[in-house]
Amino acid sequence: MKLYGFFRSSAAFRVRIALGLKRLTADQIPVHLRKDHQRAPDYLALNPLGLVPTLIEDDGTALAQSLAIVEYLDETRPEPPLLPREPKARAHVRALAQVVACEIHPLNNLRVLNYLRRDLKQPETAVEAWYAHWIATGFEAFEAMLDRRPGRGRFCLDDAPGLADICLVPQVFNAKRYPIPLSPYPKLMAVFEACMKLPAFDAAQPSKQPDFEP
Amino acid sequence: MKLYGFFRSSAAFRVRIALGLKRLTADQIPVHLRKDHQRAPDYLALNPLGLVPTLIEDDGTALAQSLAIVEYLDETRPEPPLLPREPKARAHVRALAQVVACEIHPLNNLRVLNYLRRDLKQPETAVEAWYAHWIATGFEAFEAMLDRRPGRGRFCLDDAPGLADICLVPQVFNAKRYPIPLSPYPKLMAVFEACMKLPAFDAAQPSKQPDFEP
Repeated sequence: MKLYGFFRSSAAFRVRIALGLKRLTADQIPVHLRKDHQRAPDYLALNPLGLVPTLIEDDGTALAQSLAIVEYLDETRPEPPLLPREPKARAHVRALAQVVACEIHPLNNLRVLNYLRRDLKQPETAVEAWYAHWIATGFEAFEAMLDRRPGRGRFCLDDAPGLADICLVPQVFNAKRYPIPLSPYPKLMAVFEACMKLPAFDAAQPSKQPDFEP
Repeated sequence: MKLYGFFRSSAAFRVRIALGLKRLTADQIPVHLRKDHQRAPDYLALNPLGLVPTLIEDDGTALAQSLAIVEYLDETRPEPPLLPREPKARAHVRALAQVVACEIHPLNNLRVLNYLRRDLKQPETAVEAWYAHWIATGFEAFEAMLDRRPGRGRFCLDDAPGLADICLVPQVFNAKRYPIPLSPYPKLMAVFEACMKLPAFDAAQPSKQPDFEP
């Protein structure tokens, strides 16, 4: 497999974690988002939205959208599972993942911040306030939702990491780049700390990628 | 089952379509988003993000996030299926759904437009340009992705509607409320027209909901 990504992309980070948890390797191909390499015609042919990640399967099939890719990996390489088996538990884990993937991250990715800067002529203070606002709104809900299912373990669902943890950790990394208080979210941060003790999460972080730039 | 929704919410619209395709009924409970009823404490207890929809299962379990709810319905009431069985086809359908649910809709929902108006003091022309920009960007990619799998039928995947169609149709309804040209997306619009011939899609549209306001 090949993974088109970018060290800083939290969507690519999710797939890197999933690959690590499954003990799979993929050749990493950097797509430099700050140099607009995602708009190059050959990349757009693989991923018409011009977003990372794209996973290329061994038969050449190009797969887009990080949550779809993680579910695909889980369906084709079932061990260890990234989703529980019971439908209500699955829905809970997916809902947590989507709080990050549908309610926080889409508002804070680079193309949106650039629209605020370039098209809406917003100063950097307003862009940072926007960034912090959607993280706070989303993390507040994530924190409230975490204990809705009884018997939670160290991670979002139980004592094994899965799809919700895979989405949470990159979002916390993004939050830490800005002066965003994280103390209001002690449960979420405890999950983050538990995840970061695992090699799959640690090795997937931006600073450990081959294309990392300080 | 009970479904907390709002006639205009495209995320609630998705779940209404899924229920219709599965021939399920749910008591509809309106949550008036323009009157901020989603911020009422009793609703936040069900859905900490203050978003619709929330599906209440017969045993009282509250399920959030429309894509998680649709997959839950598909797992617990398998007929007719809303996702194909083959993993690459599933990933393709989920990716199409996520182009709408992760790349268009989160940027255009009411709380975001209100942030542009209230916090960033943007005039209505700038808000409309923002709205149109993210629809155009997403629809362009959706259109390009539709025929990536050979042998497509009348709908996004084949000749039966599923998760991608469920996400596409409400997004087209949203686009039609603004002067957004849809002729650049002939394949996507042909899928939309095919869907709207089906009772499950027709009955789920905003103007046919009990809480509809012109």
